[in-house]
Amino acid sequence: MKLLITGGGGFVGARLARTLLARGTLAGSTIERLVLTDIAPPPADLLADARVEARTGALLTQVDALRTEPFDGVFHLASAVSGECEADFELGLRSNLDSTRALLDALRARVEAGGAVARLVFSSSVAVFGPDASMPLPALVGDDTLPAPQTSYGTQKLICEHLVADYTRKGYIDGRAARLMTVTVRPGRPNGAASSFFSGIIREPLAGVESVCPVSPDVSHPMSSPAHTVDGLIAVYEASREAFGGRLAMNLPALNVRVSDMLDALEAVAGPEVRARVRFERDERIAGIVANWPGGATAERAKRLGLAPHENFADIVRQYIDDCAARPDAAQTLKGMTR
Amino acid sequence: MKLLITGGGGFVGARLARTLLARGTLAGSTIERLVLTDIAPPPADLLADARVEARTGALLTQVDALRTEPFDGVFHLASAVSGECEADFELGLRSNLDSTRALLDALRARVEAGGAVARLVFSSSVAVFGPDASMPLPALVGDDTLPAPQTSYGTQKLICEHLVADYTRKGYIDGRAARLMTVTVRPGRPNGAASSFFSGIIREPLAGVESVCPVSPDVSHPMSSPAHTVDGLIAVYEASREAFGGRLAMNLPALNVRVSDMLDALEAVAGPEVRARVRFERDERIAGIVANWPGGATAERAKRLGLAPHENFADIVRQYIDDCAARPDAAQTLKGMTR
Repeated sequence: MKLLITGGGGFVGARLARTLLARGTLAGSTIERLVLTDIAPPPADLLADARVEARTGALLTQVDALRTEPFDGVFHLASAVSGECEADFELGLRSNLDSTRALLDALRARVEAGGAVARLVFSSSVAVFGPDASMPLPALVGDDTLPAPQTSYGTQKLICEHLVADYTRKGYIDGRAARLMTVTVRPGRPNGAASSFFSGIIREPLAGVESVCPVSPDVSHPMSSPAHTVDGLIAVYEASREAFGGRLAMNLPALNVRVSDMLDALEAVAGPEVRARVRFERDERIAGIVANWPGGATAERAKRLGLAPHENFADIVRQYIDDCAARPDAAQTLKGMTR
Repeated sequence: MKLLITGGGGFVGARLARTLLARGTLAGSTIERLVLTDIAPPPADLLADARVEARTGALLTQVDALRTEPFDGVFHLASAVSGECEADFELGLRSNLDSTRALLDALRARVEAGGAVARLVFSSSVAVFGPDASMPLPALVGDDTLPAPQTSYGTQKLICEHLVADYTRKGYIDGRAARLMTVTVRPGRPNGAASSFFSGIIREPLAGVESVCPVSPDVSHPMSSPAHTVDGLIAVYEASREAFGGRLAMNLPALNVRVSDMLDALEAVAGPEVRARVRFERDERIAGIVANWPGGATAERAKRLGLAPHENFADIVRQYIDDCAARPDAAQTLKGMTR
């Protein structure tokens, strides 16, 4: 089979690609070709795999080719992130809305020309949820919670969920939208995202670096690990339409965890001296944004697909440490660990 | 003030224009200019008003001009209807989604160039609601019911609701989305819409013509009259943002009425011989579509704006008869009435 991962050079996309290549099959078919599109090339290990073809450039400039190119399946992960979309409204519309529309129209053109219907998994986000003046945010957001996006990013994800649903209803794709929870722990440097600290307060202390937590320790948030997130995307792809259960988007499983629980887990795994590198210094701007985020999520439909959240945050910390240990820069990323 | 009504040549748009011109003011300002855009010119009585300027052509070809043209307010009603959008997917995307996006971007361009923020009322629809395999449809759909569109039209309306919300959040417009209920009784000929019979079973018998009802008499549906619908749009325009209560779309008031109640009302107003012109002949295709429509709606937010539904369907029948009596073709439209 021939697969496409948009955003295949990104953190989740590259991990999904590695997982798929290691499995070798998806939904019972052998993966013969895996096309990764992204604005930057994918990591070298992926490029070294003979099944991988990387295409570099904005998705919007690449989708026309898909009108005549058959793909069995697509994981559509490419997206400008929340902070970028707030800073540059046009960028968000172009990268998230127009690109998705063009991708769906390319797949539709294939079908209208007599081609087979491609299966498509769209990575939506827990960012579709928020409070509205007309409606409070429930303590836990579920599959059937009314979305009220607080950002252009969340708005665009929600709009794309509904495009995916309608193109599916019309038979142009076999689409499934899955809402990713906040993926933690992300490697690398802090970025401009308001959620950056959720990874930072684990990643930096493990690297021996001080980290500032801008919100109260009792702030709760729905989290998932990179591995669980990838497993969720694959399970959603492999589900029958009946098992997926509808055209509306599905929440992926979340571990609903407080910042204090995260730090307790960090201490349990890595020791008190690592935890001590986290300092609380309230940032009103970030705390204000986070106050509009759900404190947790449920994922009843995902549960019926056999997907479960991590049972505790220590498992997520250990996954990060194990991932780092396998990297060439392990000494840097884990140099704060003393045990 | 200078106002724009897109779809100003249509049934609701022309009625809104007449109502606004008769009032002379909106939100405390005098209406000096009323621009009506539509694919066909508006009725002659509107063209005869010195304040009216008609612009004929597809909205998408007209919006660029709005980038430099100041409007105080916009009623965005232009839309391809449900049946058209199902038959021609591209038409729906272009007429409903692309046109709205282009309109919002034109208003945004004005603001980014230093212009004032225009107020915009977007006419969404009860068609955003439906059942999903993941979720049953509640007996009554409310402001906070999770939308699950069953048509491309409903999908596009829902998407535009969220575009309006996000452009509002960003300060590019002062936007309010109001969901219209099924507007009954529409004058004119039956059209291809699945909902056409809701008007037909009243309109045709009053004109002395037999009418077929394709669904069971116990089918219930949320209705509003043309006059109440227009009043709702104006109240939404005139509301303060605080009174509108959020960025999410608001249901306009509905009289939730069964087909049998409608016919009882027709008989009470116009006599048993008029009612006798309605024959029940089940159409499985239409009955199947209607089975996915909400049986009724609530409108709590609209109620707080002082908007109430009709108390009974007889008032809606009387409104239609009064409207017909004022028309040049009154003898035709009411020739079935014997009292």
